Amino acid sequence: MNKKIIRNARIITMNERLDILPNGNILIENGKISAITTQSLEDTDAEITDAEGMFLLPGLINTHTHLPMTMLRGFADDLPLHEWLTGHIFPAEARLVTPENVRIATRLAFIEMIKSGTTCFNDMYFFEDIIAEEAKNAGIRGVMGESMIDFATASFQTVDEGLARCEALIRKWQGDSIIHPSVCVHAPYTCSQATLQQSKQLADRYGTLLQIHVAETRQEVEDITARTGMPPAEYLHSIGLLDRNVIAAHCVWLNPKEIELLARTGTSIGHCPKSNLKLASGVADIDTYLKAGITVALGTDGTASNNTLDLVEEMRFAALLAKVVHYNPEAVKAQTALRMATINGAKALGLDTITGSIEIGKRADLILIHADASNMLPVYDEYSAIVYAMNSKNVRSSMVNGDWIMRNRIVCHVDKENTLEAIKQLSGQIRKM
Amino acid sequence: MNKKIIRNARIITMNERLDILPNGNILIENGKISAITTQSLEDTDAEITDAEGMFLLPGLINTHTHLPMTMLRGFADDLPLHEWLTGHIFPAEARLVTPENVRIATRLAFIEMIKSGTTCFNDMYFFEDIIAEEAKNAGIRGVMGESMIDFATASFQTVDEGLARCEALIRKWQGDSIIHPSVCVHAPYTCSQATLQQSKQLADRYGTLLQIHVAETRQEVEDITARTGMPPAEYLHSIGLLDRNVIAAHCVWLNPKEIELLARTGTSIGHCPKSNLKLASGVADIDTYLKAGITVALGTDGTASNNTLDLVEEMRFAALLAKVVHYNPEAVKAQTALRMATINGAKALGLDTITGSIEIGKRADLILIHADASNMLPVYDEYSAIVYAMNSKNVRSSMVNGDWIMRNRIVCHVDKENTLEAIKQLSGQIRKM
Repeated sequence: MNKKIIRNARIITMNERLDILPNGNILIENGKISAITTQSLEDTDAEITDAEGMFLLPGLINTHTHLPMTMLRGFADDLPLHEWLTGHIFPAEARLVTPENVRIATRLAFIEMIKSGTTCFNDMYFFEDIIAEEAKNAGIRGVMGESMIDFATASFQTVDEGLARCEALIRKWQGDSIIHPSVCVHAPYTCSQATLQQSKQLADRYGTLLQIHVAETRQEVEDITARTGMPPAEYLHSIGLLDRNVIAAHCVWLNPKEIELLARTGTSIGHCPKSNLKLASGVADIDTYLKAGITVALGTDGTASNNTLDLVEEMRFAALLAKVVHYNPEAVKAQTALRMATINGAKALGLDTITGSIEIGKRADLILIHADASNMLPVYDEYSAIVYAMNSKNVRSSMVNGDWIMRNRIVCHVDKENTLEAIKQLSGQIRKM
Repeated sequence: MNKKIIRNARIITMNERLDILPNGNILIENGKISAITTQSLEDTDAEITDAEGMFLLPGLINTHTHLPMTMLRGFADDLPLHEWLTGHIFPAEARLVTPENVRIATRLAFIEMIKSGTTCFNDMYFFEDIIAEEAKNAGIRGVMGESMIDFATASFQTVDEGLARCEALIRKWQGDSIIHPSVCVHAPYTCSQATLQQSKQLADRYGTLLQIHVAETRQEVEDITARTGMPPAEYLHSIGLLDRNVIAAHCVWLNPKEIELLARTGTSIGHCPKSNLKLASGVADIDTYLKAGITVALGTDGTASNNTLDLVEEMRFAALLAKVVHYNPEAVKAQTALRMATINGAKALGLDTITGSIEIGKRADLILIHADASNMLPVYDEYSAIVYAMNSKNVRSSMVNGDWIMRNRIVCHVDKENTLEAIKQLSGQIRKM
């Protein structure tokens, strides 16, 4: 039996009661958390890690990514959304999204994510079979689905072909310990009603998550309203697309009726504050969404519109931005922001029985934070220290399913040197295009 | 003669033309930059540093700090401004602001600032004589002034006594290579007209900077308007407080007339986006201020309202937030944000002849950034990589006035171990109070 003990950590459980153990020990057996205690834990068979001066947290969960876009980090910035997307990103992607480039760029994304405390992501892109393979190799937990869209892409020519790819991915990985295949459908403004509904049916048939972009910009609200007579979330509800197994990325522009619809249907939100600022889309009113009972989680979006995959930053932006929406400093307190980045992420992805908090019986998806650091001391309140002061590089070590994926800042299963070299070569080619 | 050469760096000069040398070398003689070239530099007497894979930048300039507040980092969060200030911060300060505590907390601030790329700060607090001493020891460039205010403080009982402390500080340090004494006056809502004007006269007599908080909250605008018939900046102008040697922190709420007054008088702004969000004060419209010709620089404010001293984050918040104020993604582009953190900071503090850019004749206040990092690659545009992707912990080494103050992440002149131990002891006492 594979056993690990982590000792002397300040354990921030993020369980329902928000228990904190100031000096706790944890036992992990075969990838599962089997004891959390302030009593001493002894086991001669176990690998022991001393975490003196460290916080032990559930790993952070990024609920909205387009990982291979790392190849386009900083490729086009400070531009209006339409010009950015159609003038720069789409044409670049048309030439660059190949299996080999997706592989390299995904490895780079994994290094960055693991080094900033992420243990689980939810990806929408193309060639997700490669992303699944690479996630399995890296040891990081991932939810991923091919992005259905009504035009030919690098990985499929027709939606039927795309759905077949999705289904093959699901059949291949369903039941895996860390790879969770899903279905993605791009957005109401890029997909027909048939595409949207077929995608939902596939997700329902296999019991997977469905991911979609919703109400990112005011332009989208205007366009969908002009076409359907309803704003995006209401339209999606009318065709059966809002549901417990759906996560809607962005949701910057929801009206009160739509907020109520998301709450009632159990649809979750993947809030991406930095991307929404950078593309000047707006600021989602997450304090209102949370109070309405919606599960709001956090996402970075792709690195072409962020430009990082750093969830620590995303927590900070989420908490701080929410305070000016209604000029209320009590909106989205530190512990709420950390919930969004952990247990809410797990709930939004349908993975809260296995990850998102430190509880007996859950898989050990954990991060150790060097809190004895000049940028975090003094610590009067753990949530404040994590959300308002911590730097993602304070994350020292990271574990998924009981396996270390980073120890003392060294990523265990991705070859950093080769990956950085490959991305430099690739970007050199892109620069000359 | 003390000579240093830094070789093979990508030099981001931040000069007027925004020159970038993709592979440059720099010669530093007696603290001054004496050559910047793509030609090879040879000098057998010089200390050589190879900067392969690094960016060389002017050090970052933090134009608004209350450094000793590191002792209260995370002490009270997520509270309305008035309750936060009068219910928590002021009472705590009344007991805690002693010379010894100011010394410890300032050392902690220096470690954090140096490790995140700051080479120059502008501080307003109490016991600034101690802060000056500690800055000199740490080797960091600092502008500092005792904070004049119309009530008894830990370091002075009356304004006259406070002004005498200010003058003594100026006389002691005037002409120093890195310590730049100044005058500070807290705010129009805490200082009488006489206090404001006496402070300005002292600054003018010695040719120093004057720092003041202006228009931070809507409440302040209402209160000052009720009392004087004018909003804060207009009121300050009417009594002679706007001028080339004045830096106004915050300026969240300026009307068009006040914007024009600041521009016309050459008054600078110390923009503190994170603090303004955290206290729910608002979002300053810096794109408009910059277009009006005002020198807008960046500040963190104190760590009780931020909670970091990290200017890399502040740049990112400044650039991203500005884009949603008018839903314009072209507002405050990356290079503008970096300007704010470097040359604009120097201009705002009246130090642009000696720091803020890499130019021949200026003092060598420089930082080296490890840009060959998983969170920064690929680099298509240097400004984008620095403002949108860099993490402050990518700063590897740092120099002020030609002296290294950090090398390979080790702070040279502040005892980290003892400082962290002392701050832990102090916060332990504070927790029991």
